[in-house]
Amino acid sequence: MALSRALVRSVGLRVICSSTAAQPVQSRPLPAPKVSPDLNSFVFRTHTCGELCAAHIGQEVRLCGWIQYQRQGAFIVLRDFDGLTQIVMPQEESIAHLKKILCELPLESVITVTGTVIPRPPGQANLEMSTGKIEVRMQHAEILNRCKKLPFETNELVKASPGVETQTQKSEALRMQHRYLDLRSSQLQYNLRLRSQMVMRMREYLCNLHGFVDVETPTLFKKTPGGAKEFVVPSREPGKFYCLPQSPQQFKQMLMVGGLDRYFQVARCYRDEGSKPDRQPEFTQIDIEMSFVDQARIQKLIEGLIKYSWPEEKGDIDTPFPSMTYSEAMDSYGVDKPDTRFEMKIVDVSEVFRNTEISFLRDVLSHPCGAVRVISVADGVKYLKKKDLENLTELAKALFNQDLTFVALQPDGTWKSAHAKILTNVEKSQLCHATNLQKGDVLILTAGDRTMANVALGKLRLKCADILESRGVALRDPGIFNFLWVVDFPLFLPKEDSPEEFESAHHPFTAPHPDDAHLIYREPGKVRSQHYDLVLNGNEIGGGSVRIHNMELQHYVLEKILKEDSGLLSHLLEALDSGAPPHGGIALGLDRLIALTVGASSIRDVIAFPKSFRGRDLMSNAPDSVSPEELSPYHIQVNWPAEVHEDYEKS
Amino acid sequence: MALSRALVRSVGLRVICSSTAAQPVQSRPLPAPKVSPDLNSFVFRTHTCGELCAAHIGQEVRLCGWIQYQRQGAFIVLRDFDGLTQIVMPQEESIAHLKKILCELPLESVITVTGTVIPRPPGQANLEMSTGKIEVRMQHAEILNRCKKLPFETNELVKASPGVETQTQKSEALRMQHRYLDLRSSQLQYNLRLRSQMVMRMREYLCNLHGFVDVETPTLFKKTPGGAKEFVVPSREPGKFYCLPQSPQQFKQMLMVGGLDRYFQVARCYRDEGSKPDRQPEFTQIDIEMSFVDQARIQKLIEGLIKYSWPEEKGDIDTPFPSMTYSEAMDSYGVDKPDTRFEMKIVDVSEVFRNTEISFLRDVLSHPCGAVRVISVADGVKYLKKKDLENLTELAKALFNQDLTFVALQPDGTWKSAHAKILTNVEKSQLCHATNLQKGDVLILTAGDRTMANVALGKLRLKCADILESRGVALRDPGIFNFLWVVDFPLFLPKEDSPEEFESAHHPFTAPHPDDAHLIYREPGKVRSQHYDLVLNGNEIGGGSVRIHNMELQHYVLEKILKEDSGLLSHLLEALDSGAPPHGGIALGLDRLIALTVGASSIRDVIAFPKSFRGRDLMSNAPDSVSPEELSPYHIQVNWPAEVHEDYEKS
Repeated sequence: MALSRALVRSVGLRVICSSTAAQPVQSRPLPAPKVSPDLNSFVFRTHTCGELCAAHIGQEVRLCGWIQYQRQGAFIVLRDFDGLTQIVMPQEESIAHLKKILCELPLESVITVTGTVIPRPPGQANLEMSTGKIEVRMQHAEILNRCKKLPFETNELVKASPGVETQTQKSEALRMQHRYLDLRSSQLQYNLRLRSQMVMRMREYLCNLHGFVDVETPTLFKKTPGGAKEFVVPSREPGKFYCLPQSPQQFKQMLMVGGLDRYFQVARCYRDEGSKPDRQPEFTQIDIEMSFVDQARIQKLIEGLIKYSWPEEKGDIDTPFPSMTYSEAMDSYGVDKPDTRFEMKIVDVSEVFRNTEISFLRDVLSHPCGAVRVISVADGVKYLKKKDLENLTELAKALFNQDLTFVALQPDGTWKSAHAKILTNVEKSQLCHATNLQKGDVLILTAGDRTMANVALGKLRLKCADILESRGVALRDPGIFNFLWVVDFPLFLPKEDSPEEFESAHHPFTAPHPDDAHLIYREPGKVRSQHYDLVLNGNEIGGGSVRIHNMELQHYVLEKILKEDSGLLSHLLEALDSGAPPHGGIALGLDRLIALTVGASSIRDVIAFPKSFRGRDLMSNAPDSVSPEELSPYHIQVNWPAEVHEDYEKS
Repeated sequence: MALSRALVRSVGLRVICSSTAAQPVQSRPLPAPKVSPDLNSFVFRTHTCGELCAAHIGQEVRLCGWIQYQRQGAFIVLRDFDGLTQIVMPQEESIAHLKKILCELPLESVITVTGTVIPRPPGQANLEMSTGKIEVRMQHAEILNRCKKLPFETNELVKASPGVETQTQKSEALRMQHRYLDLRSSQLQYNLRLRSQMVMRMREYLCNLHGFVDVETPTLFKKTPGGAKEFVVPSREPGKFYCLPQSPQQFKQMLMVGGLDRYFQVARCYRDEGSKPDRQPEFTQIDIEMSFVDQARIQKLIEGLIKYSWPEEKGDIDTPFPSMTYSEAMDSYGVDKPDTRFEMKIVDVSEVFRNTEISFLRDVLSHPCGAVRVISVADGVKYLKKKDLENLTELAKALFNQDLTFVALQPDGTWKSAHAKILTNVEKSQLCHATNLQKGDVLILTAGDRTMANVALGKLRLKCADILESRGVALRDPGIFNFLWVVDFPLFLPKEDSPEEFESAHHPFTAPHPDDAHLIYREPGKVRSQHYDLVLNGNEIGGGSVRIHNMELQHYVLEKILKEDSGLLSHLLEALDSGAPPHGGIALGLDRLIALTVGASSIRDVIAFPKSFRGRDLMSNAPDSVSPEELSPYHIQVNWPAEVHEDYEKS
């Protein structure tokens, strides 16, 4: 039922969902474990429903699975996670009764069948199905569980399989309520199995190849200074709360002080972000920390980790990954996580307009931070409609308060722009040179504060990519995986609400760049950090840093620069003073990495039981009410708001 | 510092703490990964401090570590997780200044040393140390971090290493506050590294050998019906709470309904047990579930799992594990988790006293449930002192309201007992026969309700073992690992407070024993279950069951037998009706298993950052106060008790 027939027909089920099959006759796309797993150990079946082929003809087999469909009163198609097998029921009187029962069983009922593998009659082989050359002639069958009711029609569930578009898709909420049905789909089976195998390969790399120690750290922790977005857990001590940590950061640094040298953990982390889309209140990170290491060595470790765990079917990954400084990323892509699968880079054309007649550009350039910057949309004349340009203009105005100007070099060589007439030939020529402008291209110009102009153009660049792709231009190949390091971030940023004060660009434990360390006491705003982000196709999938291991420096950063009460971190400061080795690490966002790897549009498609956008588990109906008696050991009571809005997502 | 010198001297550090070393010259006791891990990849050092030996003489090496001690102004002993290396500082003028600095550095300071491996001078080799034949002649050194203050004397920390007794042990609280120092001890390094490797082997067995899928299930769940001891987590919806689950039970059953077929997870679980000793509010279980399986097959899987992941150094494990029914365990050991490393089984001697003159025994035996039962303490005449017998008597009275009688067969063949004179020769002879009584043995008799007598004798049996061991009798060899299945538990038990009602002996999802299934509607109290416990040396280390997969049966158990509101589990019932396969599983308590494996007296010795007995993290001081403003998004406020007792463990 939940298997998409389209998928079955097109590639054969085993390529889609049976990555771990024991039979060598099929190609196995997932990273192959050294020993092929035995999928039939310790269970009633002798084979999975996906593995039988001509080589098994004549064998007696036992299969267990779900009734996918019945045909002509003589066939049952049986399904398990591994595929489909056709069962043929012979015309014998002795099993006539059983046959009738089986044919009348509701779809999705669970049965076990014993029989003999036989070739399909001549001309009836289904070559698009991995088991399509054979069928199993039933000798005996047993009903293990009758399926009594399904919340939606079988057909609709098939269509509603993730990744398969349908006009009659059942509402997301109904599917989330019955998540166990969606889990039967080949797409979710594939995603979860690939996730399991990639994580296993990462463990092999870290633990078996490089001697990392898998250490579990507590999740009942305490609130970190300034740690908003942390769930609280009341304890039995009045007024005292645990918090669920956003990361094991402090614990992993403590492990380094404790001489545990090379640590990793597949760590559950928590962040209460209310209704931010496509975030989960709990998520998983591959958490790593090492002693006696520097930035380059950690990056090398991670490149090896990704390469080792990368699924074979997704093609090879080249290492080392390219690296880009934060300022280059902001300058060329307007964002600190550039999608380098396509060009359309931001170019500075301030010099072109140094003596322009266009007054607003001249005004902007008279400011020290002013700049004129541009992206060039190849064949924009063809693909960008008037309405698109209007939308882009609105977006730039609304989000960034930036005015845009468009300059088109028409296919006939003429220029089209609100300012076409004022543009001198020199300017035109310089513009062509600076942007490598070709006939048919459109330039999107913005002028203003350089940083703001970059950020606006970074956003417009992605917007233009969306538009071009909607018009059929292949820009961002989902089969290409562009890993990228972004490095040399600033250590501190001016606070948004009071720009004369500083906050950590990442976290207060990040070490300054060695070349800038001397500036920390005089010009902290100019200090680069030893933080590095790992970016994949425009998504941040990890971040880490070399940490401060010197107590005085850590104390100075907390007290003097960040103006925080270092007493809340006295345990960490004390630890740094007790023989802390130099150390650093990284955390990879596992959910996001897997989602990008399998091409899922949401991390919810790589999590078995995700929460809804509003943080609810629609299957079990969590969170739920708890009685005052059950709260009393925790010394808390509910503060009911004056008006309680009872707007469940379910209703 | 934190390395116990006694351990270093006796067996050589590498056997104790360097299980993952890359060098083949040392025996490696831990389960050997297929590829030896490279412990020096991606770091500054070329070798660990534990791996250098005569084969390295002449090589230039770089080591990183902590100063363990300085000697005679010419030697430094450098330590890392892997061992100790002696550094010799040459008498050269050029490094005189550096030498002075190094010799004055506080112990536990972190340095890196470059030098050449040389043989120790003749007669100075330390053969009890794995690196004792060599030393490193320093060419260069760098101070990476100066250790400024330690909360206790280095010496005391050495002595206070877990597992090493000392008279001057610092208080537990002080050590917990500075857990990172304890983590440097060879014992904790060993425990945590062995834990990591055992878990890795389990994953290899499950994932790579048998195709299990590692699925992460949510920890923000909802309260289970009747689930006391669950931490609540307030959400942003007024009055709605998540709960931290005690196990992924419901989710793993949903995975089976979802066709995920064979699932495992190293799952963090939560239980709020207040101040129960040696429990942790969060703990870890190896959680497993399979479809199309029966009890015997799951037991076989687990036997294979334990055997595969068992550390080589702990000797071989025999499989299959022996099995004992619940009633046999209660009858012979008075407990459902018998320690079978020693005999001293409970024996029924009711028949011996059927016609006794001893009036209270006669009285007891006139009741239908009455029984006279006995354990026999070999050489008890020699080892049990009068005071011991008094203590045992008091214990039996206080805990179980049972009276005891002692009967000793003296070495000279005479009988000693309060009732010696009334015992007939026939009774004496039968008693000898029933208990295999030898000269010098002592019988401990109790009479009364058979079940209560068993439980009391079960407790006394362990108490006697303690006494005998304190007198030097080796009864429970810590090097023996007796795994045992206990099976055929009752499905339901009478509720303690209202014995006419039933509660689940384990949990309401447990399936009845197939032979007893018909009794469930008539005599539920007589139904055995398909639950099984895995016991190791008298400790329950795991439990599981075949689950109910039939909706009607599950509904009947919840509503009719347990009188629970099945509406709270409607999602599970609905799932069972949607094509749930037969399934079952198990959960192994990882912390306990590892503690028993390494011989730790507490699970806190196998957890990096354990909570104190009162559930506090003494290092970071969690749980901690949270401001009313931080609580307001969660719509809760603190209910301050009239009297707030400020009794911190720390003070």
